Amino acid sequence: MINYPFNIANNSESKSNVSYKNRGLSLEKMINDSNKYYRFIDKALIYKKPTPIHIVKTNKENIITEAFFERPSSTDYNGIYRGKYIDFEAKETKSKTSFSLKNIQDNQIEHILKVHEMGGISFLIIYFTALNKIFIYFASDLKKFIKENKRNSIPLEEFIKNGKEVTLTISPILNYLVFIDELLQ
Amino acid sequence: MINYPFNIANNSESKSNVSYKNRGLSLEKMINDSNKYYRFIDKALIYKKPTPIHIVKTNKENIITEAFFERPSSTDYNGIYRGKYIDFEAKETKSKTSFSLKNIQDNQIEHILKVHEMGGISFLIIYFTALNKIFIYFASDLKKFIKENKRNSIPLEEFIKNGKEVTLTISPILNYLVFIDELLQ
Repeated sequence: MINYPFNIANNSESKSNVSYKNRGLSLEKMINDSNKYYRFIDKALIYKKPTPIHIVKTNKENIITEAFFERPSSTDYNGIYRGKYIDFEAKETKSKTSFSLKNIQDNQIEHILKVHEMGGISFLIIYFTALNKIFIYFASDLKKFIKENKRNSIPLEEFIKNGKEVTLTISPILNYLVFIDELLQ
Repeated sequence: MINYPFNIANNSESKSNVSYKNRGLSLEKMINDSNKYYRFIDKALIYKKPTPIHIVKTNKENIITEAFFERPSSTDYNGIYRGKYIDFEAKETKSKTSFSLKNIQDNQIEHILKVHEMGGISFLIIYFTALNKIFIYFASDLKKFIKENKRNSIPLEEFIKNGKEVTLTISPILNYLVFIDELLQ
């Protein structure tokens, strides 16, 4: 008897009834669950990097009693899919009109562009919570946008035009790897 | 005026005079410095993942006041080199005769083997501190060793025979990517 960690069979819930907004799921939770599923079916090995923390003190039981958050040096997620290096940053925004690049550190944007230059697949996943819309936005488009625009926020129209909207599925909840498949074709 | 973070020019110290043992450098420090150098010259983007920590409490100043260490779910280092996904675990041992696989979690060994199956480049870096020797040991050899041997420690002879000994250089201190170049040829 295998104890499946996911409800991959006999899920009677229809696709149209599923709303991540109504479920109150965070983007991080959706991505982590999807990555767990991808690992379970041996499709991809993608993990969220732990939050970087500088530890100041630990006690005798090795419990941390003083520590502070550090600036991440790269992006939140990376791993391997179809032999390719995958790297991305995921962000939520409450805005209904644009995503401000101020939400992402300069060194993270630079990292995403460098991965792309080096032949890896890098992108942003942006969740417009008020619109209940999630987009994948590849590094090549980000590079072009930054080059051509002096504004430091990406309007929703740009995501609609050049991004890929991720629709919800059962397993995994965010099947974002289909867009990597498209890209590799 | 560029402020170089590394002494990449006019270093008169000859290769033979350099000893990581005498310098008292940890393997982690040597790898981190080498990765920093590789990033600086735009050769590879490889980072150490932060230590996973479960945060229990933070105070008003966002200082962590209670947290504990978690088990890492994958390996310590990953990134991209020559378009390939790179993934490895680094360990020191005081033993003069073997490296015990008990020093690496089962799920980490499984991860290394899976990355290899998926077309990534995965390996161990083992530092025999008492012998002042550092070896790269690729997943393909690890897989073979585990299959053919019931012992859960890898003898030094196996590293000498099938591993690659990493000799010290100036920049970077551990030029381990040369063995990836060899592998890709």
